[in-house]
This record gives sequence, structure tokens and C-alpha cells, in this order.
Amino acid sequence: MADSEASEVRASAPLPERSVGRWDHDVDVIVVGFGATGACAATEAAEAGASVRVLERGWRGGGTSAESTAQIYMGGGTPLQKANGFDDDPDEMYRYLVASCGPGADEAKIRIYSDRSVEHYHWLTGHGIPFEPGFVPYEVSTHPGPGQSLSYTGSERTWPFCELARPAPRGHTVLQDGVMSGELMMQILMKAAVDAGAAVQPDTDARTLVVADDGRVVGVVARHEGRRQLLRARRGVVLTTGGFQRNREMLRWHAPHLLDTTVPIGPEIGDDGSGIRMGIGAGGAVIRMDSGCVTLGFAYGHRDNLRGILVNAQGQRYVNEDLYQSNHGGVALQRQGGQIYLIVDDEIYQGRGSPGPGDEVGGTYSLAAVAESPEALEAELGMPPRSLSHTIAVYNEHAGRGEDPYFHKESLWVQPLATPPYAAIDLRVGHTFYALFTLGGLHTRPGGEVLDADGDVVPGLFAAGRTASGVPAQGYNSGLSLGDCTFSGRLAGESAARRSG
Amino acid sequence: MADSEASEVRASAPLPERSVGRWDHDVDVIVVGFGATGACAATEAAEAGASVRVLERGWRGGGTSAESTAQIYMGGGTPLQKANGFDDDPDEMYRYLVASCGPGADEAKIRIYSDRSVEHYHWLTGHGIPFEPGFVPYEVSTHPGPGQSLSYTGSERTWPFCELARPAPRGHTVLQDGVMSGELMMQILMKAAVDAGAAVQPDTDARTLVVADDGRVVGVVARHEGRRQLLRARRGVVLTTGGFQRNREMLRWHAPHLLDTTVPIGPEIGDDGSGIRMGIGAGGAVIRMDSGCVTLGFAYGHRDNLRGILVNAQGQRYVNEDLYQSNHGGVALQRQGGQIYLIVDDEIYQGRGSPGPGDEVGGTYSLAAVAESPEALEAELGMPPRSLSHTIAVYNEHAGRGEDPYFHKESLWVQPLATPPYAAIDLRVGHTFYALFTLGGLHTRPGGEVLDADGDVVPGLFAAGRTASGVPAQGYNSGLSLGDCTFSGRLAGESAARRSG
Repeated sequence: MADSEASEVRASAPLPERSVGRWDHDVDVIVVGFGATGACAATEAAEAGASVRVLERGWRGGGTSAESTAQIYMGGGTPLQKANGFDDDPDEMYRYLVASCGPGADEAKIRIYSDRSVEHYHWLTGHGIPFEPGFVPYEVSTHPGPGQSLSYTGSERTWPFCELARPAPRGHTVLQDGVMSGELMMQILMKAAVDAGAAVQPDTDARTLVVADDGRVVGVVARHEGRRQLLRARRGVVLTTGGFQRNREMLRWHAPHLLDTTVPIGPEIGDDGSGIRMGIGAGGAVIRMDSGCVTLGFAYGHRDNLRGILVNAQGQRYVNEDLYQSNHGGVALQRQGGQIYLIVDDEIYQGRGSPGPGDEVGGTYSLAAVAESPEALEAELGMPPRSLSHTIAVYNEHAGRGEDPYFHKESLWVQPLATPPYAAIDLRVGHTFYALFTLGGLHTRPGGEVLDADGDVVPGLFAAGRTASGVPAQGYNSGLSLGDCTFSGRLAGESAARRSG
Repeated sequence: MADSEASEVRASAPLPERSVGRWDHDVDVIVVGFGATGACAATEAAEAGASVRVLERGWRGGGTSAESTAQIYMGGGTPLQKANGFDDDPDEMYRYLVASCGPGADEAKIRIYSDRSVEHYHWLTGHGIPFEPGFVPYEVSTHPGPGQSLSYTGSERTWPFCELARPAPRGHTVLQDGVMSGELMMQILMKAAVDAGAAVQPDTDARTLVVADDGRVVGVVARHEGRRQLLRARRGVVLTTGGFQRNREMLRWHAPHLLDTTVPIGPEIGDDGSGIRMGIGAGGAVIRMDSGCVTLGFAYGHRDNLRGILVNAQGQRYVNEDLYQSNHGGVALQRQGGQIYLIVDDEIYQGRGSPGPGDEVGGTYSLAAVAESPEALEAELGMPPRSLSHTIAVYNEHAGRGEDPYFHKESLWVQPLATPPYAAIDLRVGHTFYALFTLGGLHTRPGGEVLDADGDVVPGLFAAGRTASGVPAQGYNSGLSLGDCTFSGRLAGESAARRSG
């Protein structure tokens, strides 16, 4: 088949096995994609004794994980948690994740993820992933300093979660010589896969799956060096191609409320939903396709901004500002149509110091309005009289006592807004960065087996990481995607390797 | 195959055509399901000259449509609109539907739905559907009186829609002798299908599809009288089995936020997503599976309740109360966690008169709190001081001038809440009726052709009504599902009949 023909193969149209004349390659397990998920899947599969071939679209792999901040959400009593005096256990971790990854959290996945988190920590470090021993001495995530891999990267200390589970920091940032690096993490994970014996084939565009008459997935059709390639997978194919935040059409079909987000996370060649579509073509079902992680990092690197108040177009507060940043974008879009502002007074504004707000996430925030009084600010913003000014007055009244009876913001962030001028930082969608990656995907068992629409296994097909709906089904904490990718990748690789062909 | 074996056939596992020995029946078009969608599909297909067989799970058909209030959303200048002096046209209808059925409304479907709405009216009346000539003289839907088929059944007069498109009433209620009846409507539509020549086979459980090696859908596997039946469809299979509001597992997978709703619409034997799952099994993609119509009919039959104010757990207003009732449940669940109250004063409360609130929708509302002052009411409800009482004070201040600058409720519903005692009607989810039907389903073209995950047609497979994602993709007006079911059913039936086998 010539290049042009191979290019026209559609992910959703699997090739029947009976039309395969000769396989170009014949291995036990094929892993599609060489990001964090694929690297861990390949490593586990190879270590379990399977012959493994990894198909990577780019020239070397790394995927969206290589562009990440390299935080991995782990807990339950990791060595790093213990060394820093934090008491965590799998049950507390489980309770927190069920509450923060819902509604509809996948309790089975969260259970095994929590129970095996310490083991996963050792697996990662055993394969060369470096953490440094210290704790970032803040209540929420900020840039780890040299020596500080452990930090809070979620809403653990935040109401209502703090009442549901004992808080503990669970963000483990990959650090070497004080530098956090998704690139370094991926170099290590990719090397681990190669060291374990996986063959990596770059510049290969997996196009669709090969399916036997009885429905089993038995291989992959790829395009490589301008030609079609047929690769047989005797035991299984593991799809790890990331999400679909770079596929506008899929977003329109499944999650139109996310179309207004401005920054799709990850490199341009990835996250186009190809693995998800291949899985659907082979009979897999997708779930939670409306779900995404939309980060609105208004306090990232500027913890003082948590002392401000978030308000909607009516000047009402609607959330505790100390909810973790990775959830604020979704809350703003889903509940407030993306029409929100952060209100600060001059003390908070000046306290922001340097670097300016948002510098780290690639942009700056603009001011929607500045005024000498709350009443003037609400007028500037076009809000009705006694809307925002009332919100500020009531907030201040309680804040004077360090209280927030409406939304239960942690008291250390609660202080009256009382130093003019007052400013409204413009956080409306379209006016600042709403960073997106998708959370919906193929329906899988914890072991990575892809399920069809009746909940039955599609034999020979596995998916993990963002190609599946995983631990972060809805709701998010930093490090949870990399945590889920690395862990679910391992399980899927092992499941595929242990399957009899 | 014995009964027990046929029962075990799973929707997602299509039967390969090559394993079919002998077909039990051989027709041009098979329609699965005999509700409004299926009846209209069968009628059009038969009238186009196809031999048609309808497979119906129940003993006679009717589906969820037979239990409906028989409102059909049509416009663009129907005879009924004209006779009552309303000026409507397809473009206004299109603009309103695009705005109210989004985000992500299917503009192609809405375009043809609006353009052909008058034609559809004539098609329905031509097949015997009776409307009576009058207009329900109210601003929102209420029970049609004798002789009054036309009414407002949406948010046409409501902000912001009233600024986007010229309002017109588009609800056409099927009435005969002054009685509205989904049952009557279905008797007429089912008779039309039979009269057109469709063979109807009741007590037949369609289990899965039959698929050719090249991916074409060529038939249906059914269970009938305890035995497996193989039915060949030379031109196409049309899936019209309704939604999945009665399938708790599918709700958990796709729309966990809808699990708390209390009343799944429709008869118990339907809406379990069987057609959707059959379609997925044959390679069809599903979209918008998180989307549902959740009716919270707090003003249904009690228009005075629109003079009250809806508040959330913080005592804040969050919506214009005159938004159409079929959207209030979704707004409450998605944006406020289902924790809402309707605040009324004694004048509104007494004005409710008889029948009591909610009687028509099968239940009564309870009072969460009654108090002599707004301050006492907020305390009774456990809200912080100056929350609800401030909301009422500000609302009253503007309401004294007939204005609602916050949410733009139509002025005729705006009056101060000033006659004690004050009451909070309990509209929290779990405390009153949240009625659900699902809006997500198979991805189709306007003509009913089912699409795969790449947007390509699955040959021979069609879906319509609530088995597909249709005109009401997200957001809802009463009559829009029956309107979409009857119209999309017609198009799918015609598409299937005209397809060469």
C-alpha cells in the first residue's frame, strides 16, 4: 500500500485479520505511544517476559509528559512523606481521591492506586526517577525549591475535603540538582523501557487496529517511512496516545464547553484522540468524554492572590479561592460561564511582588478595573449597585474574625480587603489562560482491559493514561495524571504481557 | 439457539453476517422500537416504497412518547401560529434553538428542523394528528385548556434568548376533545405506520446487529417467543429505542451528575440504552453522553411561583426564575449541586391556590423553612447572616421598579417579596422531583446516518430520536424531544428506504 493509501486509513475502521497477508513484525505486546504511560507499559510488559514493540509518532517519544512539570501524585506513606513527618495512609488517600475525583469517581481504580502507591514510588525510584528529600514549606503547590520534591498539589487542606480525609502532601516532583523536569523524567522512563528490552520504533504513525473475526485485537496497522506496516501483537495492544485536547472536532462532539479554553497542554503532534478512536473502532466504549482538567493558575507562584476573592458577573463569590488551581478553570466554565474576576486590594496587589502574576504559566493577567472603593469598582465592572460592594462588605465583616462562613476558605488566606485602591484581575475566559487536557477516554478495568458498551472485555485491547478514563475521572490534583499514567501504564503493560495469545 | 442463549447475546457484540445460515425474515428496512421515532421512521420508509418491519419490545408499542404530554415543538409559521397572530419564521426559530440547545448545538440539524417545521406540521396533521386552534393565553407553558393547542413551552420570552431571536410560541399540543394525550398521539402514529404497510412485530427484543465483513449493518438478531430470530435488512436498520435514563450503569459511566435525579421519564421496559449499545457495537460513536433534560417544574401549573426567587445554599440568586422549567433541574444540578430553594412571601404562597404545587407532576413540595422575616428565614435555613436577607433586600429594591438587573427576569414576574411570613420551598435534589431523560446518544447526520469515531458513515445503520444526539443536544424546551423524534425519525426512515442495499 502506498503512502497516500496508508494515510487514508481511518482509526475507526479496523483491518480484518483475514485480509492480512504477511505481518511485518510479530511480537507479544505492541504499545502505541511513548509518553509516560507507554514507557511504563513497555517496561512492565518487557520485564514480565514479553517481546514488546513501541510505536511512537514523533522522532523519539516523551509526549505530553515531557512537557509537564513532572509532578507525580503518590501517597499512603511514601518514604518522602515519612521523612518530612507526614502521616498518610492508603485509606486517607483513597477517601480524598474519591471525594475530589467525582462525581462518579472510579472507586476500583482509586482503591488499587492508593493501596499500591508506596510500591509505585519504589518502582519509579528503582527505575531511576530522582526525588529530592525536602518539603515545599507552603500550604499549596508552588515552585519546588532545590531539594524539595514533596508538596501539596491539590485541595487536601481545603474545605470540604479537609473534613473528609486527613490532609497530606502527595505531590512528588521529579527533581535533579534542584531542577524539575518532565524532560528528564521521560528520558529516564524511556531508557527504562529500552533497558528492559522493548524495541522502540519512532516516526511511526499507528493508524488503526487489526481485529480477528471473533473480535480479538491482534495487531496494528501503522505508517512508517512512507509505507504501510502490519504489526502482529500476539498477546495485546496497549493504547497510550494521550487525550484529545488537540482535536477540535472531538472537543466539539464531546465537550463543547471546553472549546473556549485557550491552551491545550502538550506538544502539537499529540493528544489528537487517535488511540481513543482506534479503540472505539475495535469495539471499545468511551466514558466521561465531557471531562477535562482546566487549570486557571491565578495563584500559581502568587500565593497572596488566595487572599483575594473570586466573583462572578453578578459580583457574587461562588467558591473557596483556595480550591486547587487545576479545578478553578472547570468550575469557572461549568458554573459561571467563564465570567469571573479576582478582586484584590492594594495590599494584596503590591504583595504580589515579582515575578508578576502568571509569568510562570506563559502570560500575564490584565486588570479589568481599578477603583478607590468597592462601590466604584462594581460600577466600573458594570455590575449592579450593592452587588460586589455587598460581597466585599460581608466578606470583610467575617474576615475580620478570620472566618469565611460562606465557602470555608482556610483562615490563613482570610483577611479583609480594606486597602484602596481595589482591583479586579480579569480572569474571564478569553482574557487569560485556561489550560486544558482531557480526562475522558476508553472505558477500562483497573488492569487496563478495554471494555465495550456492555462492560465486557474487548480481548487483546488495553488502554491507559489519558487514552482511558482513569483515576482523575472528574476533578483534578497536580500530579494525578502523571501518577495515573505511570501506574495505569504499568498495570496495562503487565496485563497485556500475561495474557495468553 | 435456545432462549437462554439468545438472552445472553450482548448488544455490543454484533453477529458476523458470515455466521448467519438462514434469515428468518428478509425486508428492506428494520426499525427497532415503536415509539414516536420508530413509528415515523416506519411510516416514511414504507411510504417511500420499502418493505418495513418494526421490532417492538412491548406488547404493542408507544414507548416513552405514549406517556408524554404530547407537545411537539414546531414553528417557522405553522397554521396554528398564524391563526393566533404570531409572526414566526424559520430563521428566528433557528436562532433561538441554536442559542437554547447549546453549547455545541448541532447547527445542521437545527437548520433543517427549522426550515422544514411547517412541512412537518402538515405531515403530522396529514397523518391524523389533531391540534385544536387556540392559544394558551399565558407567558409560559401550563396545561392547555380545551381548544388550546398552541403555547409557549420554552425560554423564548426569557433573557437572554428574547434578545437573540423574536419570541413565538412553538409548543403544539396534541389535543382531541380538549384532552391532551401522548397515548392518543401514539395510537395515531402507530396506525399511520401500519396503514403505510409496515409490519409490526411486538414482544420482540432486538439483541444486537448483524454486520458484514466490510462493516455494513445488514440485519438484526432478536429474541421472539423464546427463540432467536435473524432478520435481514437489505437497505438499513433504524435504531429508535429511546435514551438510557433507565440504565443506572450507563448513567454512572457517562453522566454521574444525573444519578441523583429521582424520576426517569418513560415506561419501565424502555430507555435502557439498548439501541445506543447496539450502535456502538457496530462501530457507531456516541456524543454528548453527559447531557440530559432534567425538569424541575416548580412553576408548572403555578405560574405565581415565578414571582419567587431561586437561591442556592449561600442564599444567592443564580438564575432568572422564568428560564423554562426543563432547564432548571440541569442548572441546579450542574451549577449548584442541587442545593436550591424557592423563596416566596405569603402573597405568592397563598396565591398558589389549588391545585397545590407539583400535583400535576406527581408530587408535592415541602417547605424547608417558614419565618416572619428574611433574617429569621436565613437563620432557619442555616445560612450565614446577611446572605439571603441581603439577596431579598436587593431584589426588593429593584423589584419595586419592576427591574431585575442581575438576571433579567421578565418584569411581569418581578415584585417585592414583602408580605410575611416568608417561606423556603424545598427544591433540593432528593427532596423533590427531578425528572430525567437523556439527550446524548449516537452521533448521526441530520439524515440519521450513524457516524463512527472519525465522523464517517457506518453503512446501513441509522438512528433517530433519543437514541441519537439530536436537536436538543444540550438545553431543552418542552416538545423538542417529540418534535425531534418525529422529524428525525421521518428523515432516518426515508434515508434507510432510499439506500441501495
